Amino acid sequence: MIHEECGVFGIYDIGGGDVAHTVYYGLLSLQHRGQESCGIAVSDTSEPKGRVKSYKDMGLVNEVFTGEEIDKLPGNMGIGHVRYSTAGSSTRENAQPLVLEYVKGTLALAHNGNLTNSLELRDELAYTGAIFQTTIDSELIAYLVARERLESGSVEEAVRLAMKKLHGAYSLVIMSPRKLIGARDPFGFRPLVLGKRDKAWIFASETCALDTIGAEYVRDVEPGEIVTVTSEGEIISDRSNCLPKECHGHCIFEYIYFARPDSAIDGISVYESRIRAGKFLYEDDPIEADVVAGVPESGNVAALGYSMASGIPFGQVFVKNSYIGRTFIKPGQKRREDSVMVKLNAMKSAVAGKRVVIVDDSIVRGTTSDRIISMLREAGAKEVHMRISSPPFLWPCFFGTDVPAREQLIAYNRTIDQIREKIGADTLGYLREERLDDLVSNKICVCKGCFTGNYPEQPPEEDIRGDFEK
Amino acid sequence: MIHEECGVFGIYDIGGGDVAHTVYYGLLSLQHRGQESCGIAVSDTSEPKGRVKSYKDMGLVNEVFTGEEIDKLPGNMGIGHVRYSTAGSSTRENAQPLVLEYVKGTLALAHNGNLTNSLELRDELAYTGAIFQTTIDSELIAYLVARERLESGSVEEAVRLAMKKLHGAYSLVIMSPRKLIGARDPFGFRPLVLGKRDKAWIFASETCALDTIGAEYVRDVEPGEIVTVTSEGEIISDRSNCLPKECHGHCIFEYIYFARPDSAIDGISVYESRIRAGKFLYEDDPIEADVVAGVPESGNVAALGYSMASGIPFGQVFVKNSYIGRTFIKPGQKRREDSVMVKLNAMKSAVAGKRVVIVDDSIVRGTTSDRIISMLREAGAKEVHMRISSPPFLWPCFFGTDVPAREQLIAYNRTIDQIREKIGADTLGYLREERLDDLVSNKICVCKGCFTGNYPEQPPEEDIRGDFEK
Amino acid sequence: MIHEECGVFGIYDIGGGDVAHTVYYGLLSLQHRGQESCGIAVSDTSEPKGRVKSYKDMGLVNEVFTGEEIDKLPGNMGIGHVRYSTAGSSTRENAQPLVLEYVKGTLALAHNGNLTNSLELRDELAYTGAIFQTTIDSELIAYLVARERLESGSVEEAVRLAMKKLHGAYSLVIMSPRKLIGARDPFGFRPLVLGKRDKAWIFASETCALDTIGAEYVRDVEPGEIVTVTSEGEIISDRSNCLPKECHGHCIFEYIYFARPDSAIDGISVYESRIRAGKFLYEDDPIEADVVAGVPESGNVAALGYSMASGIPFGQVFVKNSYIGRTFIKPGQKRREDSVMVKLNAMKSAVAGKRVVIVDDSIVRGTTSDRIISMLREAGAKEVHMRISSPPFLWPCFFGTDVPAREQLIAYNRTIDQIREKIGADTLGYLREERLDDLVSNKICVCKGCFTGNYPEQPPEEDIRGDFEK
Amino acid sequence: MIHEECGVFGIYDIGGGDVAHTVYYGLLSLQHRGQESCGIAVSDTSEPKGRVKSYKDMGLVNEVFTGEEIDKLPGNMGIGHVRYSTAGSSTRENAQPLVLEYVKGTLALAHNGNLTNSLELRDELAYTGAIFQTTIDSELIAYLVARERLESGSVEEAVRLAMKKLHGAYSLVIMSPRKLIGARDPFGFRPLVLGKRDKAWIFASETCALDTIGAEYVRDVEPGEIVTVTSEGEIISDRSNCLPKECHGHCIFEYIYFARPDSAIDGISVYESRIRAGKFLYEDDPIEADVVAGVPESGNVAALGYSMASGIPFGQVFVKNSYIGRTFIKPGQKRREDSVMVKLNAMKSAVAGKRVVIVDDSIVRGTTSDRIISMLREAGAKEVHMRISSPPFLWPCFFGTDVPAREQLIAYNRTIDQIREKIGADTLGYLREERLDDLVSNKICVCKGCFTGNYPEQPPEEDIRGDFEK
Repeated sequence: MIHEECGVFGIYDIGGGDVAHTVYYGLLSLQHRGQESCGIAVSDTSEPKGRVKSYKDMGLVNEVFTGEEIDKLPGNMGIGHVRYSTAGSSTRENAQPLVLEYVKGTLALAHNGNLTNSLELRDELAYTGAIFQTTIDSELIAYLVARERLESGSVEEAVRLAMKKLHGAYSLVIMSPRKLIGARDPFGFRPLVLGKRDKAWIFASETCALDTIGAEYVRDVEPGEIVTVTSEGEIISDRSNCLPKECHGHCIFEYIYFARPDSAIDGISVYESRIRAGKFLYEDDPIEADVVAGVPESGNVAALGYSMASGIPFGQVFVKNSYIGRTFIKPGQKRREDSVMVKLNAMKSAVAGKRVVIVDDSIVRGTTSDRIISMLREAGAKEVHMRISSPPFLWPCFFGTDVPAREQLIAYNRTIDQIREKIGADTLGYLREERLDDLVSNKICVCKGCFTGNYPEQPPEEDIRGDFEK
Repeated sequence: MIHEECGVFGIYDIGGGDVAHTVYYGLLSLQHRGQESCGIAVSDTSEPKGRVKSYKDMGLVNEVFTGEEIDKLPGNMGIGHVRYSTAGSSTRENAQPLVLEYVKGTLALAHNGNLTNSLELRDELAYTGAIFQTTIDSELIAYLVARERLESGSVEEAVRLAMKKLHGAYSLVIMSPRKLIGARDPFGFRPLVLGKRDKAWIFASETCALDTIGAEYVRDVEPGEIVTVTSEGEIISDRSNCLPKECHGHCIFEYIYFARPDSAIDGISVYESRIRAGKFLYEDDPIEADVVAGVPESGNVAALGYSMASGIPFGQVFVKNSYIGRTFIKPGQKRREDSVMVKLNAMKSAVAGKRVVIVDDSIVRGTTSDRIISMLREAGAKEVHMRISSPPFLWPCFFGTDVPAREQLIAYNRTIDQIREKIGADTLGYLREERLDDLVSNKICVCKGCFTGNYPEQPPEEDIRGDFEK
Repeated sequence: MIHEECGVFGIYDIGGGDVAHTVYYGLLSLQHRGQESCGIAVSDTSEPKGRVKSYKDMGLVNEVFTGEEIDKLPGNMGIGHVRYSTAGSSTRENAQPLVLEYVKGTLALAHNGNLTNSLELRDELAYTGAIFQTTIDSELIAYLVARERLESGSVEEAVRLAMKKLHGAYSLVIMSPRKLIGARDPFGFRPLVLGKRDKAWIFASETCALDTIGAEYVRDVEPGEIVTVTSEGEIISDRSNCLPKECHGHCIFEYIYFARPDSAIDGISVYESRIRAGKFLYEDDPIEADVVAGVPESGNVAALGYSMASGIPFGQVFVKNSYIGRTFIKPGQKRREDSVMVKLNAMKSAVAGKRVVIVDDSIVRGTTSDRIISMLREAGAKEVHMRISSPPFLWPCFFGTDVPAREQLIAYNRTIDQIREKIGADTLGYLREERLDDLVSNKICVCKGCFTGNYPEQPPEEDIRGDFEK
Repeated sequence: MIHEECGVFGIYDIGGGDVAHTVYYGLLSLQHRGQESCGIAVSDTSEPKGRVKSYKDMGLVNEVFTGEEIDKLPGNMGIGHVRYSTAGSSTRENAQPLVLEYVKGTLALAHNGNLTNSLELRDELAYTGAIFQTTIDSELIAYLVARERLESGSVEEAVRLAMKKLHGAYSLVIMSPRKLIGARDPFGFRPLVLGKRDKAWIFASETCALDTIGAEYVRDVEPGEIVTVTSEGEIISDRSNCLPKECHGHCIFEYIYFARPDSAIDGISVYESRIRAGKFLYEDDPIEADVVAGVPESGNVAALGYSMASGIPFGQVFVKNSYIGRTFIKPGQKRREDSVMVKLNAMKSAVAGKRVVIVDDSIVRGTTSDRIISMLREAGAKEVHMRISSPPFLWPCFFGTDVPAREQLIAYNRTIDQIREKIGADTLGYLREERLDDLVSNKICVCKGCFTGNYPEQPPEEDIRGDFEK
């Protein structure tokens, strides 16, 4: 499975109501973007310098926040964060939001994305006496903001200047004593939207968080834009770091897999882009079959698109055990049980004697696909045709997605037919690379780096994330 | 939501391997039958008198068993239990399996169902000096077995005699030092199947548990039958308590809602019975619409059947947040957020401007249906047609299902049109009562008591469960 | 270390106030009698049949009860228990009080002591159909009371009849819907006192619990006596099971070690009996020395007595680390650190160049004494003279104390001089057996079984506790 | 109660063995110096740049470290910290050691004491772009070291330069990738000793930690000295920040109360200084009495000194409940129970009819003394004479001790006779201020600021700690 690295949320209730519960519900609806750690920081803006309280820990939102923690977070401005990370830096210290004191009071930051020049920035800061208590980019960003603030007239100005030194992907939510700021890198790798509910302004990684809290979608924060919510409830937009639209590099995998299908990102419905993916899969690799189904949950919408285009009936083929938490004990090598079978089962009644088309969002190492295809054959499927709603992964992502090393990718050094053989499918079709722009109706410019090796922004010479963990 | 009260699992590996992990995976796959408490008891049959170790607690299977607990449960025979119960008796003491010493050594029991004469049995036992440490039926059953064992030649004979005193619903798995026993009440209210994996015999509430552990389905334990697995691996069947098939009363709600759709119960595929329900719903209440969808997860298969019968395309209309655990903090009255919205969202792209048919398994109080219909209208649905894959609930269940008091049931004292109005649907259709036998192809005799008030076995004069909790 | 097996507490507030907090403080002050598990059961006697709530778990009183558990225990009658046990039966199921339903309602029991005929009782009960969910004596006692109650006119009458079948040691506190009962075996092995605070009557293992809750000591429950507190606040005493005083066998080790020195047991001050022990030690084994000190905590009072008799100044020689909880990680074999040194340190300033007399309550295996003497020598002591305020342990206890097997006792098959040599002391003196009656001023008859092998009541032929655990 | 704020420990095993367990035992023996949070950081010096792992949390050492945490801390160099703090900053973020990356790799710090210029330092650092993630002095010290390191040839040189900017009290243990450093402020407010065990060098707040781990005391780190342990096992001493001995200001309260009596600080035995205090108390305020006793635990040694000087027999008068953890539920206003009675009880046998002298280390608010004296009178004491082994508290401490605000101090605006009356004693005697130097035999210069208002180093104009928390 490919992992997103984070989700962010921010709210400023000019009306003065407590917001911690709302941040909690917002994070619950962004939980799919990161399940490792989470946190909430709130500020009471009626205090002269703000008063920030925060709580964060390893675990899911509803494991970390069980009731009384939220009651101890009073305040009418708040930000929150959910995080996924690779094992090495998966520590409590690295949980976000990052809360800190600087020359002008308290600052809290939540960051989604990945800087590509963090090593250089760390070195540069260290050589002027900085100390680092975490290994997250937010700390670097905080330092840059703090330093720029010494000369700047406002925190948003400091953010603007700090952004000039940041390379890579970042969607930021920043809380200063009296302002809430949302900012996005000039390429727009990661999403960030602006919403409103009564007198409260909201930033969130996805629109589904706005729906959950009953807020209305206002617009996306633009790539490169800094949006500042003031204590009077005004919205100040600074677009001086923006790039022309054709330079943008919105992550296409947000549409294919990361985002919830009920979200719209940069004006494009995720649901519709997946429906289109399914249609393209049929058009480019048509097949005759009796039933088409998605691998739950992420393959379902594309499978529906495939069904619409092909006329092959959509079916419920799998049952997913929704009680398998992250902490479930995986069967060891010696055990007869099988991790995939514990999570999924195929319904014999739905597939026995049938030609089945299965749609998944991607194949990474191929082990799960292999097991799923066997499971279908054991359930009596006559033929199994696999369709993947993205092109093969071949390149690393430097902008906030956790792709395994090339050697572990099934598509590395294999033809599609070799992959098909390895996973045991009768036929195998991938979404064609040239279809990627069509997924988003050619309305925005997307990053296809993980499929093509061409990135909107120059990546670092070595994969800095890999080194950093060592 | 209507709640099942339990799931049971048992395994005896004649080959001598440890079984605790297998019980764990079996329980994981039966978790939908009870999420309140769970437990595992294992026995090492190589010890002369067996040696039973057990562990149980409140919580989900993967919360209670996190690793080391299972390692402390060595043994080649084991039983397990998942439990739901109403609040009053939801205590650690009442978790199952019940483990006890009796005249012949150690006995462990796991019970799914509900006795209708438990008050009488408790009185009778108390008046001969019994003491009760729990409020569960298993303790009564254990007493009866222990007393019959004084005069009987074997534990299975004692079970046979004890069953003569039990009224109501019970699917039992019983572990004695050298035998594993599965038994089912003569009406067959609750399911119980027999499976096999190499030298191990398995009992489970549903066939999905057999699939999960890689075992093969052998057959259902018959209503009234006692199946004993001996230490030589022989299967002894005692059918002397069986009743003619026409007396049976298999719970129809297992097919409609409780069981996993990949299970087959008494030879009938749950998936197929739900497909049939969807078809009947269309045939009996046809409508023109643009899309048909199920309320996740339980309405999906019936919605597919509706789609098949009607030709109206099946759609993905809802996104369910799969990270909302039982412990999530429900929004209070004052909060702007809404419990249903936190769990579910409607995809605007899928419903805007469309006529939508929504299929759910049942309506209990009507509050969730109300919210879902509003959500669809807010997402732009032009019409919302609700179809329910069961008849209206009107009567209590005495046989192991937790139905609220009549006054709380939306169907009580309301016409279907009044219900429709209350939940705000354009049209509303229920499965007709006369269709219930067709759901199971008229092959088995089902209990429809909760819809009709007519029960296969005489219920007690008062609802004993209600009294007991007080 | 020799372990006591339990402490009990009971209170009935006729005035109707909640008692759970008071039980909690009572148990805190009895914690020295058992640190493995604990529990509280309360009853609201304003309910017609009483309403019992209970909570128990493994752990210390202030670990198990952290606040909200007590708030969930409303009621004006309550009993509590602290427990120590050998490893085998150290399970949550065996925690007390035992709460059960029987023919007349709810009964709760807490037991301190050890029955010597429990195997026979279990067999007898099993052969009439009893089932056992624990391995504790309380369950046997409960069965006997429940059976006698069928023919008896009252619960206290049932207790009286049940006592006739019990052999061994028991101090019981029993809560029925409207009565609180305290009872003690006819030999009086274990203590039990009666106290009063306003309209509340209290039973407790020791008077220190009365002090802690601000209650006044009324009298000891007599050996064999049954004291019943009625709902009118009357005290009914039944002495029909009592034996003549010369048959009594009060455990002498309660005075020497188990009880808190601020308690009085059967009218004898524990503090004073220890002072006497110290004096006898000097009189029988006088020595010239510079300082006398106790091994903390239990040796301190006897050391003071030794100082008084000898004129040798009492000194503070050891510092005990009071933050070492039960869960501290013991140094393994390979580690340089030493478990005794982590807990205790000798003060060089207090012992360097001095002749030191050290008083301890007992030597069991001798390993701790060995370490303590080395520690004193390393701190510069010129001579180390060990005095033990009890005779050598040589025999098992069948009446509620956990003495290791004979082979592990240092005194087994060794002369005093051989023991002295093994632990490295310059001289070693034990309390002489003939002094034991003097400890309690010859006012009560004590059990000296563990020193002499002669017991007030015939012990079972084999040590039933040992077998039971296997 | 007056609270110490911290204890520190460090070890570097040149021989290469793992040290985390040893740090654990060291911290256990320093637990009396801080019970709020604790932590351990270790480094594997065989890695080129070191590899630091750490774990810290709120709670006692044996609550935070329960086994597996320590196994995950491999490495042959380690530091540890125990902390007490006032409520406001009692957060997980503020637990120590502080671990951070700086220009030369990883640094870990543990600090005991209190800077008096932290506000100025924070401002100064903030105005050059620093960000602060904690509110502890260690972070300021780390910044200074990191900045000085840019220009310095070594970490110890950077520490030396950083110390020039620090005012107030600090005993530091610092771990760099290949060096372990111990340093102490030029006044020597807080203790720090150097020890050795085989090839391992150890720093610890007190010598009792050396005893616990079986290490030998080498010497005290001198006020102002920086001691560096190199990877070759050499000890480098830098005394360039040292002041003449007559400027020193060793905290006298370490001797009176904070330190364990088996420790020696700056060459003076804590035990002996307390014995002297007791003697002075008798000489300056002689009284006739029958027994003298200490308020456990801290009054015991001084009581012994009083007994030696007066010839009045030392007695065991109190029993302290050693099972009352920090989490015990304090009796509320309405409850009949009393917090002091739950923790302490007086032995009637030891005091009834007697004239009692009670020695305590200090009186802060007077409420506990009041309760203790009542308790003695209720136990039958004829007279109660209170002796305090320190002068009255009248002034704040700026150097690492938590003294309440003046208005809460019983001695503020009261004569000794008024205090005596308020606590209900027959006579009351404090240690005279002129005796303080005698406590340490006039061998070292001590800080008596909390008694006299005169401090060795100029305190800040306002109590910065107070402001900071607000």
